[in-house]
Amino acid sequence: MTVKISHTADIQKFFEEAAGFGNDQGSPRLKRIVLRILQDTAKIIEDLEVTDDEFWTAVDYLNRLGGRNEAGLLVAGLGIEHFLDLLQDARDELAGQTGGTPRTIEGPLYVAGAPIAQGETRMDDGSEESVATTMFLEGQVLDLDGKPVAGAIVDLWHANTKGNYSYFDQSQSEYNLRRRIVTDAEGRYRARSIVPSGYGCNPEGPTQECLDQLGRHGQRPAHIHFFISAPGYRHLTTQINLSGDKYLWDDFAYATRDGLVGEIAFREDGARGVSGRYAELEFSFQLQKAADADDEQRSHRPRALQVQGA
Amino acid sequence: MTVKISHTADIQKFFEEAAGFGNDQGSPRLKRIVLRILQDTAKIIEDLEVTDDEFWTAVDYLNRLGGRNEAGLLVAGLGIEHFLDLLQDARDELAGQTGGTPRTIEGPLYVAGAPIAQGETRMDDGSEESVATTMFLEGQVLDLDGKPVAGAIVDLWHANTKGNYSYFDQSQSEYNLRRRIVTDAEGRYRARSIVPSGYGCNPEGPTQECLDQLGRHGQRPAHIHFFISAPGYRHLTTQINLSGDKYLWDDFAYATRDGLVGEIAFREDGARGVSGRYAELEFSFQLQKAADADDEQRSHRPRALQVQGA
Repeated sequence: MTVKISHTADIQKFFEEAAGFGNDQGSPRLKRIVLRILQDTAKIIEDLEVTDDEFWTAVDYLNRLGGRNEAGLLVAGLGIEHFLDLLQDARDELAGQTGGTPRTIEGPLYVAGAPIAQGETRMDDGSEESVATTMFLEGQVLDLDGKPVAGAIVDLWHANTKGNYSYFDQSQSEYNLRRRIVTDAEGRYRARSIVPSGYGCNPEGPTQECLDQLGRHGQRPAHIHFFISAPGYRHLTTQINLSGDKYLWDDFAYATRDGLVGEIAFREDGARGVSGRYAELEFSFQLQKAADADDEQRSHRPRALQVQGA
Repeated sequence: MTVKISHTADIQKFFEEAAGFGNDQGSPRLKRIVLRILQDTAKIIEDLEVTDDEFWTAVDYLNRLGGRNEAGLLVAGLGIEHFLDLLQDARDELAGQTGGTPRTIEGPLYVAGAPIAQGETRMDDGSEESVATTMFLEGQVLDLDGKPVAGAIVDLWHANTKGNYSYFDQSQSEYNLRRRIVTDAEGRYRARSIVPSGYGCNPEGPTQECLDQLGRHGQRPAHIHFFISAPGYRHLTTQINLSGDKYLWDDFAYATRDGLVGEIAFREDGARGVSGRYAELEFSFQLQKAADADDEQRSHRPRALQVQGA
């Protein structure tokens, strides 16, 4: 028989005390959130008859998850980050803030402070030249009427041929495959880089451990992340996922969305000064107008910041 | 206006997919728990209109919490560990498994493998002799009829005069203030040690950071932890909290309970071969009979294990 006590006045009062309702210090907002988390946690324990062993396994898991800095990876893999996008879409729909390129998840691997270039740049450091396929990526930043947005910042980052990201993969050079490009008068950005490989969770990490127990893989299709921002326009966090990848519609992080598939074309015509096979990818973005100054900013999610030359 | 989508069939189906219900691999039990956590997390986000900034602050907090190995400390501080005791008490009440010394929280600072002694031992390594007060701790392990339980293992651990625990405080010697004592024919255990100080959360740690925002302190009264076990008896996890401590009934981890206050007496009579002030503390434990073999065991909570001589 399932025993439940969390609804009783005594326990509710205890949780209120633990959440700080008995004092007038601290943050009323956090108290409210913590109280709700306590109440719901207790209900989960009771309803599912969570055993002590299960509970302490979960606590140990949280320590190992944070110890590997994988909390952001887990919330992507469990679909919570995608849920936040869907919820914001629904809010936008209600507010009539629609149109333009869809948002999708940021993921946990952005690093602030990448080099800035005007109009065009090369993103790779050449270290994978012998194994990588050169990629020419270009497109425009446009408004909802299709007019170019000059001076927009296209802040993009992607993995190398092993699916690894610089900074988190310390074998790569500083800011490898991370750049900020300011669009030209025609709203255009151009990047020469290498075709990224799909990302896979660390097979030894706690996120993959959880996915294994859920019977799920931890793979993503090859993709390129973008923050697009410009004065007067709503900040856009998105990704393009590359056509032809076996995980394109089987992304463990649920980032692939209609309208965000990048049609990558492979050529071998000696053009563009590249000998052998290379890739072309054209992708343009359409931005909504910002409703207010806050709208122009990305979330204040804590992010890595690499110190140049460190 | 609060926008909600988590109740829709599409989102419920998405969460089921993310929790692994779309495949027949992995652990059905974990899938069920993860699905419930996803559903409840989404509801919290919707009901409390959790912002992106708040959500990512929480994810970052989880990384920092685990990075400092403090998940076990936080669940104690937020009262969840005490709630588990209260829930087990209620289950016991229903099952008629009552009587004996109350259980209370284990806390996150046990280390397995402490030295074993027969009947009596000294617990401290003498390193704090100039500042510590010598403590003589003794008592009996009894059954519910008050009959001695010989051969019971009294596995006890406590802090030093700074409130720190060996192993986690690497300045202390191996297994300092951690021992296992096998009770004698009269069920008696005797330990010479030092009077512990109360424990306080690391002021720089994430647990204290949360408590600060809840307007709460992170202090515990001076206390001594016990695991008591014996063949045929139900395992007991408990603590005695020392009388006279200002935090005795204001414990941030809610471990103090009626029946678990240790009346510590300070003397200065030259007895026991100690010059100056010393303390005496007598505390006996009463164990329930085990209903089955499983009842004799403590939870399988992952615990630290110190390798002797490492």
